[in-house]
Amino acid sequence: MIKEIPSESLNPDSFITEHVNDIRKKVVEGTVINALSGGVDSSVVTLLGHRALGARLRTVFIQNGLMREGEPQKVASFFKERGVNVEIIYAEDAFLEALKGITDPEEKREAITQTFYKEVFGRIVRESKARFLLQGTILTDVDETIAGIKRQHNVFEQLGIDPQEAFGYGIIEPLIQLRKDGVRKVGKALGLTEEYYNRIPFPGPALAARIIGEVTRDRLEIVRKATSITENMLSDTGAFQYMAILHEDRVTGMRNGKRDFGNQVEIRCWDSVDARTATPTNLPYETLTALAGEILEQVPGVVSVTYNIAPKPPSTIEAV
Amino acid sequence: MIKEIPSESLNPDSFITEHVNDIRKKVVEGTVINALSGGVDSSVVTLLGHRALGARLRTVFIQNGLMREGEPQKVASFFKERGVNVEIIYAEDAFLEALKGITDPEEKREAITQTFYKEVFGRIVRESKARFLLQGTILTDVDETIAGIKRQHNVFEQLGIDPQEAFGYGIIEPLIQLRKDGVRKVGKALGLTEEYYNRIPFPGPALAARIIGEVTRDRLEIVRKATSITENMLSDTGAFQYMAILHEDRVTGMRNGKRDFGNQVEIRCWDSVDARTATPTNLPYETLTALAGEILEQVPGVVSVTYNIAPKPPSTIEAV
Repeated sequence: MIKEIPSESLNPDSFITEHVNDIRKKVVEGTVINALSGGVDSSVVTLLGHRALGARLRTVFIQNGLMREGEPQKVASFFKERGVNVEIIYAEDAFLEALKGITDPEEKREAITQTFYKEVFGRIVRESKARFLLQGTILTDVDETIAGIKRQHNVFEQLGIDPQEAFGYGIIEPLIQLRKDGVRKVGKALGLTEEYYNRIPFPGPALAARIIGEVTRDRLEIVRKATSITENMLSDTGAFQYMAILHEDRVTGMRNGKRDFGNQVEIRCWDSVDARTATPTNLPYETLTALAGEILEQVPGVVSVTYNIAPKPPSTIEAV
Repeated sequence: MIKEIPSESLNPDSFITEHVNDIRKKVVEGTVINALSGGVDSSVVTLLGHRALGARLRTVFIQNGLMREGEPQKVASFFKERGVNVEIIYAEDAFLEALKGITDPEEKREAITQTFYKEVFGRIVRESKARFLLQGTILTDVDETIAGIKRQHNVFEQLGIDPQEAFGYGIIEPLIQLRKDGVRKVGKALGLTEEYYNRIPFPGPALAARIIGEVTRDRLEIVRKATSITENMLSDTGAFQYMAILHEDRVTGMRNGKRDFGNQVEIRCWDSVDARTATPTNLPYETLTALAGEILEQVPGVVSVTYNIAPKPPSTIEAV
């Protein structure tokens, strides 16, 4: 049982000092490796690891082709300004190949996880001399794994590292007692800008978690555009998280007076403190219809836009 | 080119007198047959035909298993009180058999149309002595047929009546110069109660038009319950039309702390004068979340509810 540190009683500066010391104590020599996704959790853990280890932390950013517009460059340059060198690994083809023909949400996550750990990040870890992995796991991830909502295996097995050999590896998860709100407080104290520590959560499988049905280059292009419009238009709402989801269902629409079976995009915008429970944000009607208008006008093939009105539970934050 | 009678310049009493005379002039002897669906158009045309012909009009109501809760009994008893005898034809099995395995929206409509005209209503017409058909076609139907949004064939061919023989048949479409708002004015003048002449439009393929993917008994049960809840909760909004749509896409939800891939129901509520263009109704947030709450609680297997925010065009009123 992991002991939760509630956000209210968290002192971010003491937390940082304690964990910087802890990391230094664990990693007496050699290097530590971590994968940065650009989300809050991995950004905070990257800065914490960098503060503890400096150049002994090797941070890689895996471009899986499922990212939002301009994401890898944006993240790399942000961290570069803070002295953290981020290595971008281009692996789009490997991910799209692994996702080909898959429509089941669980198989999709599994294909991404396998490609990420075994094929791409696993190879990097195995080829590196690093014996420590730094990970941004938070308490909500642990809860959801226990509840069977997310699946998590032994990370070394995932990396294709032999269980025998795995005794030589160590895993460091400094954020595991925190929830999202606690992570943000720590991020702020570590010098993340508000844009980052208040960044809306974004899932590991990235835009693949925003596509119901098969993930293809074309469908990624649709959801990427819809995501960009949604994030731009909802960024000042103060909501916890907002997203655009591409449905597989085709619905009837009209273009130039003719019937057109097209795509439907679903918008979700959540009010939440820690993602455990959430309610749809009460967005003004004008915002909703303006957002739908932009998506219908700018994203080819979309004829219908909906807004989620169900809370979590029984819904979940992401649809896939 | 059919000449439109705009609602503003429509005098319902003169319209009724004129068309009652016209029907009597056309139908010198024998009987006329019509199919009543319970929608505004067929309800108005039934009362108009009854006023012109009395017992010479034979009105059938085809129970296709795609109806809303209690619909056939409700409609039959309403008309009985007004002196119109409605014959209910039970044909659920024929329709469900024809719909088995079909997911394409056009093929679905076609299967329903074929079963309705050729198999069920066609047989009744062919076996009757009626040489005249009374239909509630309105101008919007004609427009949409021309635009390719709806398909409409020669009705006698549809009924399985030989083209040679069809010269002996006549079709009467008294509402063809009107749009929905005109039909309502005529209905009111004919003594339809507000519940009826202001009844929200309901499509010919009924709940099959509210199901994306295959139409089965189980899926009909889901959308029937969601429809009942939606109609009850939105009846006092003054909206033009409102509906619940069952999606085929499965989305992730949580039940009792466990992952549950479930159904999504989409709510559409339209402001419109004549269905040619429409905008989503600006419903209060409290109404939307209460509606979602009822559906999530009362309809088994549903984990997600959305609200349509796209206008027509490029959307259409119905999704299927």
